[in-house]
Amino acid sequence: MSNPRDLEISPATAERCSPLVRDPLTVDQADQVASVFKALADPVRLRLFSLIASHSGGEACVCDIAPAVDVSQPTISHHLKVLKTAGLLESERRGSWVHYRVVPDSLAALSEILAPASFAPLPTTVGAR
Amino acid sequence: MSNPRDLEISPATAERCSPLVRDPLTVDQADQVASVFKALADPVRLRLFSLIASHSGGEACVCDIAPAVDVSQPTISHHLKVLKTAGLLESERRGSWVHYRVVPDSLAALSEILAPASFAPLPTTVGAR
Repeated sequence: MSNPRDLEISPATAERCSPLVRDPLTVDQADQVASVFKALADPVRLRLFSLIASHSGGEACVCDIAPAVDVSQPTISHHLKVLKTAGLLESERRGSWVHYRVVPDSLAALSEILAPASFAPLPTTVGAR
Repeated sequence: MSNPRDLEISPATAERCSPLVRDPLTVDQADQVASVFKALADPVRLRLFSLIASHSGGEACVCDIAPAVDVSQPTISHHLKVLKTAGLLESERRGSWVHYRVVPDSLAALSEILAPASFAPLPTTVGAR
């Protein structure tokens, strides 16, 4: 079984993965990117991911998001594990709760891979270029 | 069974679907977007989609892409049907071949849904720059 870290879309991978509209994905790239899409292809998982991504401070624990979804806390934890294995979330334990936040590079890389030619990241700094 | 057109991410839907990092997806939005991710969650399907998206002229027939993948033409046709049902491809018959092209609004909408706050569409016309 592959190391979960291998499934992450790091900034380096984003550079290797040209947007779909520019170059065909290689077999390896398609395997990697499809596994991330698979993690997002479940409606409950997608909502949980969105709830965390949009939560105040960009992070949330199961206690924050459980009231918004109609599934048990063990089921939520299972879904969050799948998202973490896909490299979309990272977590940190504080006291008795695990806090989850989106890995921003993964989200940016996925968006960039899907971006039509007229989409591109806006500069985040305009200073000393 | 839902009408395939219902699964399309039209520009109007893109406006309704705020990026994941701004607002939580609703149950309906999550159902719709997850079904599109599901279509892209298969490595072979993702490669076929990328081959069509990056093909000269932005469209291709099965005869153009079959040499690049190690699956039969009926299997390719099945995968393309799934992508079409998800609203990611549209097709047109010319002579004995069906030509497929990416629905650009669907790709743009997916990219926008995943985009971190620092991503945004660039102007498609640059005029007097």
